[in-house]
Amino acid sequence: MKEPPFAGLRCSRLERAHVAIVGLGLMGGSLAAALKARHACSRVVGVARRQETADRALARRYVDEANTDLAAGVAEADIVVLAMPVRAIIRTLPDLGRELAPGALLVDLGSTKARIAAAMATLPAHVHVCPAHPMCGKELAGLDAADPDLFAGRTFVVSPLERTRPEALALCEELVGAVGARPLRLDPARHDRLVAVASHLPYLLALALVAVAGQAANEDPLLWQLAASGFRDTSRLAASDVTMMLDVLMTNPGAIAGAVAQCREQLGRFEQLLHAGDEEGLRQMMEGAAARRRAWAEPHVGAAPATNTHGHR
Amino acid sequence: MKEPPFAGLRCSRLERAHVAIVGLGLMGGSLAAALKARHACSRVVGVARRQETADRALARRYVDEANTDLAAGVAEADIVVLAMPVRAIIRTLPDLGRELAPGALLVDLGSTKARIAAAMATLPAHVHVCPAHPMCGKELAGLDAADPDLFAGRTFVVSPLERTRPEALALCEELVGAVGARPLRLDPARHDRLVAVASHLPYLLALALVAVAGQAANEDPLLWQLAASGFRDTSRLAASDVTMMLDVLMTNPGAIAGAVAQCREQLGRFEQLLHAGDEEGLRQMMEGAAARRRAWAEPHVGAAPATNTHGHR
Repeated sequence: MKEPPFAGLRCSRLERAHVAIVGLGLMGGSLAAALKARHACSRVVGVARRQETADRALARRYVDEANTDLAAGVAEADIVVLAMPVRAIIRTLPDLGRELAPGALLVDLGSTKARIAAAMATLPAHVHVCPAHPMCGKELAGLDAADPDLFAGRTFVVSPLERTRPEALALCEELVGAVGARPLRLDPARHDRLVAVASHLPYLLALALVAVAGQAANEDPLLWQLAASGFRDTSRLAASDVTMMLDVLMTNPGAIAGAVAQCREQLGRFEQLLHAGDEEGLRQMMEGAAARRRAWAEPHVGAAPATNTHGHR
Repeated sequence: MKEPPFAGLRCSRLERAHVAIVGLGLMGGSLAAALKARHACSRVVGVARRQETADRALARRYVDEANTDLAAGVAEADIVVLAMPVRAIIRTLPDLGRELAPGALLVDLGSTKARIAAAMATLPAHVHVCPAHPMCGKELAGLDAADPDLFAGRTFVVSPLERTRPEALALCEELVGAVGARPLRLDPARHDRLVAVASHLPYLLALALVAVAGQAANEDPLLWQLAASGFRDTSRLAASDVTMMLDVLMTNPGAIAGAVAQCREQLGRFEQLLHAGDEEGLRQMMEGAAARRRAWAEPHVGAAPATNTHGHR
């Protein structure tokens, strides 16, 4: 009995779908919790590496069933969502290719998309794929940080591949909308170029700030007592999960290094203006940045939906 | 009738003191509101440039009396607090030297201290001085952002000068304690060196991030839709008040340029690691920064007093 070269979707309506989420950290846990809280699908199965995490997700009713065995967890799923660090997703794909039911939709939430998209090309034709990436996060990792409202009002990138069929894309976008997010279609390369500036550069600036502060504190430990809310916010991302962020850096190094180089140039200009005491030059640069920051933040605030109860923008 | 070369304090106990606050923006407004809310002194007089600000401060009961005339506002004051941008403080000092009652204590809240300390040397001997700087802030400016709990649990630098007498320092520290802050004695040069890293570098990193994002968005405006909470926090300070921050940059340029140069070096190392694909080098740097950030943030959280109702750390 030969399988057909490709299959239709196992289930094309989210409300009837059986969803398996592999990885119950911040993202996977939040997605499970959001689907359950909104009664968006017929069943949520969680797959975790550790029994303890599986038990906790079940106890909190983030999932209907929890499993530590990948094959068992995904066997009956109509939709499988991979919520793991980028390279863990890539390592898991060959196994999944063997385990997924024909016609299942595979979505991943990896933070970079080009390498995952390339790896997905090797999956059997009967698997539907739609890479994705929710533009939200916290510096806290793990199931304890999970939040059913994490996605509310946020942009959720979907990166359909050439092989992604319209009905698979539609189901993926239905999933995105069901957790309160706004789908934004973006090809993997463009996604990776933009997040290098919007997400990965902020992370590296936070690391650099903490490193420079650490050097200064080695000479004068009072520094830490002077660090206030400005330091706190600018350095917040330095506490991000290292495993997740290392996978980001290792799978998008060119675009990130390019963003860092641009930022170094910008900082070099500030240094020149400071050394020259160029008040007008400094003012122009400061006013330009302040106006840009406000223009970004303010429509965003206005657009925040009522379901976002956490005051996030 | 000649004045004596120096006078004792007009009033050595805060609870009996008449306090004038010059500048009713975020800092001055918050200080006035904190003193009033805590019934810390006998009278609070606010001095604003605009009548409308004076009226608003009075309407909110942040002050007992509000004035737009500096001489009238400070004439009867036992303690005068200057809550203005650094160079506005320096410009105001000659007038104040003529207006202050003998034995008055003059405190300033300027964000850099060395230039102010030097300018205070020219004040008449009958004026007591104690420069200070509260380590707290918001990216919002003006009286509307004022908050009587702004100082609660925060470090509040006091920078006594050679001419500052012990009873003047004690009264300044009593004021600091009365609004819920922790006084930290630090000489002006050391203060300016440390805040260059802890406060001014974060500001310039936020500006640089917004500038690089602006360049990227010129090529692809979708960038702004991908900017999420990480971008928001790392760029927050870019919206800071330009007048205040320009005075900071123009009065502490050497230390700030030095901090920026160190940061550029650090970013250059990240670029090398990214280009080399040096996973172990990246991991070490990331783990070091994450540990340092957590070590700074966590004791701080534990130390947050119950009076800090805003969840700030």
